Amino acid sequence: MTFAVAVAGASGYAGGELLRILSQHPDFEVRTVTAHSNAGQQLIDVQPHLRSLAHLTLVDTTPENLSGHDVVFLALPHGKSGELTAHLDADTLVVDCGADHRLESESDWAAFYGGDFYGAWSYGVPELLIDGGAAKQRERLAGTRRIAAPGCNASTVALSLAPGIRSGVIESADIVSVLAVGPSGAGKALKTNLLAAEILGSASPYAVGGTHRHIPEIQQALRGAGALDPTVSFTPVLVPMARGILATSTARVVPGTDAATVRAAWEAAYADEPFVHLLPAGQMPRTADTIGANTILLGLAVDEAAGRVVVVAAIDNLVKGTAGAAIQSANIALGLPETAGLALNGVAP
Amino acid sequence: MTFAVAVAGASGYAGGELLRILSQHPDFEVRTVTAHSNAGQQLIDVQPHLRSLAHLTLVDTTPENLSGHDVVFLALPHGKSGELTAHLDADTLVVDCGADHRLESESDWAAFYGGDFYGAWSYGVPELLIDGGAAKQRERLAGTRRIAAPGCNASTVALSLAPGIRSGVIESADIVSVLAVGPSGAGKALKTNLLAAEILGSASPYAVGGTHRHIPEIQQALRGAGALDPTVSFTPVLVPMARGILATSTARVVPGTDAATVRAAWEAAYADEPFVHLLPAGQMPRTADTIGANTILLGLAVDEAAGRVVVVAAIDNLVKGTAGAAIQSANIALGLPETAGLALNGVAP
Amino acid sequence: MTFAVAVAGASGYAGGELLRILSQHPDFEVRTVTAHSNAGQQLIDVQPHLRSLAHLTLVDTTPENLSGHDVVFLALPHGKSGELTAHLDADTLVVDCGADHRLESESDWAAFYGGDFYGAWSYGVPELLIDGGAAKQRERLAGTRRIAAPGCNASTVALSLAPGIRSGVIESADIVSVLAVGPSGAGKALKTNLLAAEILGSASPYAVGGTHRHIPEIQQALRGAGALDPTVSFTPVLVPMARGILATSTARVVPGTDAATVRAAWEAAYADEPFVHLLPAGQMPRTADTIGANTILLGLAVDEAAGRVVVVAAIDNLVKGTAGAAIQSANIALGLPETAGLALNGVAP
Amino acid sequence: MTFAVAVAGASGYAGGELLRILSQHPDFEVRTVTAHSNAGQQLIDVQPHLRSLAHLTLVDTTPENLSGHDVVFLALPHGKSGELTAHLDADTLVVDCGADHRLESESDWAAFYGGDFYGAWSYGVPELLIDGGAAKQRERLAGTRRIAAPGCNASTVALSLAPGIRSGVIESADIVSVLAVGPSGAGKALKTNLLAAEILGSASPYAVGGTHRHIPEIQQALRGAGALDPTVSFTPVLVPMARGILATSTARVVPGTDAATVRAAWEAAYADEPFVHLLPAGQMPRTADTIGANTILLGLAVDEAAGRVVVVAAIDNLVKGTAGAAIQSANIALGLPETAGLALNGVAP
Repeated sequence: MTFAVAVAGASGYAGGELLRILSQHPDFEVRTVTAHSNAGQQLIDVQPHLRSLAHLTLVDTTPENLSGHDVVFLALPHGKSGELTAHLDADTLVVDCGADHRLESESDWAAFYGGDFYGAWSYGVPELLIDGGAAKQRERLAGTRRIAAPGCNASTVALSLAPGIRSGVIESADIVSVLAVGPSGAGKALKTNLLAAEILGSASPYAVGGTHRHIPEIQQALRGAGALDPTVSFTPVLVPMARGILATSTARVVPGTDAATVRAAWEAAYADEPFVHLLPAGQMPRTADTIGANTILLGLAVDEAAGRVVVVAAIDNLVKGTAGAAIQSANIALGLPETAGLALNGVAP
Repeated sequence: MTFAVAVAGASGYAGGELLRILSQHPDFEVRTVTAHSNAGQQLIDVQPHLRSLAHLTLVDTTPENLSGHDVVFLALPHGKSGELTAHLDADTLVVDCGADHRLESESDWAAFYGGDFYGAWSYGVPELLIDGGAAKQRERLAGTRRIAAPGCNASTVALSLAPGIRSGVIESADIVSVLAVGPSGAGKALKTNLLAAEILGSASPYAVGGTHRHIPEIQQALRGAGALDPTVSFTPVLVPMARGILATSTARVVPGTDAATVRAAWEAAYADEPFVHLLPAGQMPRTADTIGANTILLGLAVDEAAGRVVVVAAIDNLVKGTAGAAIQSANIALGLPETAGLALNGVAP
Repeated sequence: MTFAVAVAGASGYAGGELLRILSQHPDFEVRTVTAHSNAGQQLIDVQPHLRSLAHLTLVDTTPENLSGHDVVFLALPHGKSGELTAHLDADTLVVDCGADHRLESESDWAAFYGGDFYGAWSYGVPELLIDGGAAKQRERLAGTRRIAAPGCNASTVALSLAPGIRSGVIESADIVSVLAVGPSGAGKALKTNLLAAEILGSASPYAVGGTHRHIPEIQQALRGAGALDPTVSFTPVLVPMARGILATSTARVVPGTDAATVRAAWEAAYADEPFVHLLPAGQMPRTADTIGANTILLGLAVDEAAGRVVVVAAIDNLVKGTAGAAIQSANIALGLPETAGLALNGVAP
Repeated sequence: MTFAVAVAGASGYAGGELLRILSQHPDFEVRTVTAHSNAGQQLIDVQPHLRSLAHLTLVDTTPENLSGHDVVFLALPHGKSGELTAHLDADTLVVDCGADHRLESESDWAAFYGGDFYGAWSYGVPELLIDGGAAKQRERLAGTRRIAAPGCNASTVALSLAPGIRSGVIESADIVSVLAVGPSGAGKALKTNLLAAEILGSASPYAVGGTHRHIPEIQQALRGAGALDPTVSFTPVLVPMARGILATSTARVVPGTDAATVRAAWEAAYADEPFVHLLPAGQMPRTADTIGANTILLGLAVDEAAGRVVVVAAIDNLVKGTAGAAIQSANIALGLPETAGLALNGVAP
């Protein structure tokens, strides 16, 4: 069976990546693409890389245009999907790539986003450990009709550290994550600091000092893995590459734990995962190896002198960070093979 | 008076930057440039950006060729300068841009470098707090004839955190630094991982887990600022920009210290420094603003939830990180104006 | 039926791209990967983006290791494939991604390459007009067992101009092509000018003034399209992007030909091609839209004042320029669907 | 004597570069900086690289604010300077970095720009050959009080070809120029196609087919060098580097002229120029070697087979292309040393 699909917000980067992956997915057929200011244009004029979808025309993002599909992907600014979803059938699979349905805590929502709170949906990170044990988020995605795709930075950090939390080999206090991120994560917004002349040849941080909106999402995920009261110092740094996140996360190793025991926690958690790959000791990942793929590569080292584990994760923010996670989760929800339509090999160099 | 200058290792990136700055310095005249495999070539054929020095020819790096100058800058691989310096006059100012004379501890040297140990020289970071008080390294540079220019990553982290250590507002245990660095810091070595096709569009870490050679240098500097037993988790990440370091360093704030007190420590330390600029609260630096300049820009935020201060530093690794620091220190040693020949404004965008 | 495949030169960029595409091709199974200095290593250690091929080990590039496959792809330096192929069965499909079998003229070979001349094979650019008429190279690929994949720059320029030559709307004298190219086209060779620090933030030409080896290949292709004595001024410019060719080619319009007639020549030639797309008037291509895809995008403008047509072509040098062209041609030779395993949509941004 | 300077349009890239160079110029003191939407802000908040000018505040761009200075630099969108200049004293040196006063022909102005025509000023390319002989534009700049700084692409191409035109060794019909350009040349305008995610990893042309506004400016300059009716096919290509122009220009060699004679024309024209450097035969320039410098590097090759000379020029579009040319010309107009305040050595790598 082929599922009829609509993508809302098809003119942006996340929307474009959803369409790129969907176009090569054996079980999905894109019927409708919607946009805001670009409605009325041919999709190909806004997303000139999507040659196979040149027949599609962007229409307005309305409940009417989105209804009547088996699956609706929403790639909208936060605050937009809550109201829109109310108009969609309960048995339509809705996958929100925005932030509206990620946070379980209304006070976190109020503190970091604000506006109406619509509550959390099944979280689109299938490999994430939950319930402080061996269970994973995958279980909650099976059969669901509402999925919140993760924040790209949040899922990267959560997958980097959850095995250590779950196994009790690292402390959840005093986690530090610093991420090198490409500007596609910021979307197509017209801001001076996102101009090419500003980004080329430069590195610059943003949302420094505990203000980034992905922090409560990370904490929520780590609590799910068993942390009681995780604290995370989180700093993203814009660097001159279109795509990619290279997240360096460190946590204190529980005193008395040897390096082999630390590594074993990650090995156990991800041994059978198709998209999460722990590299052998001594190897570290680079983002290029994940571009276009739904793969997350993890490198792990224990710094005995500093008493910390360092986990470095590489992903494509638009794939495993957003659109790939959304489609992987939709595959699970619909009972399709989890890897359907998703690339494992990155486009490198 | 004009000082006669020789630059050893003139074919590399550090050597080239020394020459670029020296060429616009009012008090120095470059007489001799030496190299290893490029000896015999015209300098301009190896460093085609140094048009004003097109008259110079590279000669072999020998004591004979280096003697007879007022100032000798060494931009050689580590292990080369110790022996060479033995042949130079005691009253010649020798500035080593390699690692040979940075570390005071022979055991640190053995653990991170190895080979003969030649002992520490005056450390070329004039603004660095020393002796656990208000004194700065500048004092030890005045009149000296032996200077060790700093490791670019090490001085960046040390300047980022020393004021907090000295003022007792941050803890020296559990420091975490993650740096986005450009590949010019790795020199002109022909390695596959430094090829443009490997670096473009990608971020990748190296020397993860406590193995980077700048770690003992950072610890030494922080001990100078008053730390008893500093621990540093240190991770450099290669990103696609030719020059620049964006260092994100975090340390736990001593409990009970408010954000204003934290900031005041840095303000007090750097208020009168010509090249170290603490940005106003809410602003963060980017590397582009320091390219070609001897400037280090610092942004500081206190993350109350995480209990940490985050200090982000931007420098040009080849200038304030290496050649600019060397020349600034030489200015001090020779009694010249400290800022002579050094740019304050970066080449941006 | 699944065809058993060997890839020689699997540790390089072209070899890696062949493997990336083959890994998602429904009709090919990679059995053997060979290398020179990397023989004995796991493929994944040399090509860390090829996660799905982590089970393969690199073996030596010998006739023995390559024999016994249905298809052998050679991604070797020029001069290596001629001798090697002599040892392979006549009914094995051999696709050479090197230059050894592209040129029909021994004197061209001697002038631009030198060494033993092994003669031309079927040229792997299916869409290229031949015989001065409506026939295309595709015809000569059907059923063949020897294919020469094109030079990436050469096929880009040839496809850009062949329709105008064939239709007689442009002159073949005084063609000028200038190409912005990424460094992956130069391979993994360890050369100083290919280091990231040299390429980042810089543009530089190479092989200027009629010396580039793709020039006779372009002339041969244009003669195939009907040109009597084409002359081409050809200049490639290295720019800081890992992949991609943006070729700007201009030719004099035959006096008296109006712009609509010029455009009609290209429309007629490529109307039904799956991978060659002529953009509407007023639109121009960018390389990002072709990354990872076997697509070539063409923009065309007639400059009435200059009396020239300007055709701008964008491709991924490693896909449509090399590995994708090789696999597309192999599909044709084996009677598979021409588009099997090949992406149409680029990975952008 | 120190000249009091105002810079209008100080918040843009050209304005910022004027200020960076002026800040290290021994004879100029920046008193006033003006802007449009940023008026009222501190300069340092808009141009964070200009640390030495942190004391300046942006004021409105009005005749009142600009009057009372010895020199006024205008870095405004075209169409703005004509009216503004009418209010400035005749003995104030006004240097317009916009297009308003470059073109001598009102019909060219109408065809490529439109709006009121204010007439040409002395053209700020001192090294440009004029009057079809050995005279140069420098003569017309001495003592003038009105200077039009050149278009960056236009002056690069004009300097590349003028010697061959003047000496009669190349034809002025059928010139082709293709330029790799960085996005800083497009200014800080908020346009989707200038976003970093669009530019990184991509090359794309613009203004293809005879529509670029610098074409009549090139033709005017070449006529000045002696061309009767020059035609130029001109295509700029945006590439991922913040600054720089790498212009590849080709022209037919007059039949019967040998390569040495061709090269001699350029050698004769630029032998004594401080900022124009013809590289030795066999060498080609790269843009990195000119960043931050007022230098233009030229590489020249004769392609005997194609019957064309290829001249490749590298400049920093913001320096020799705009702000450096403006200040060099102002130096001449005021009787200062022509090279005052201008760097010769680029910031490479």
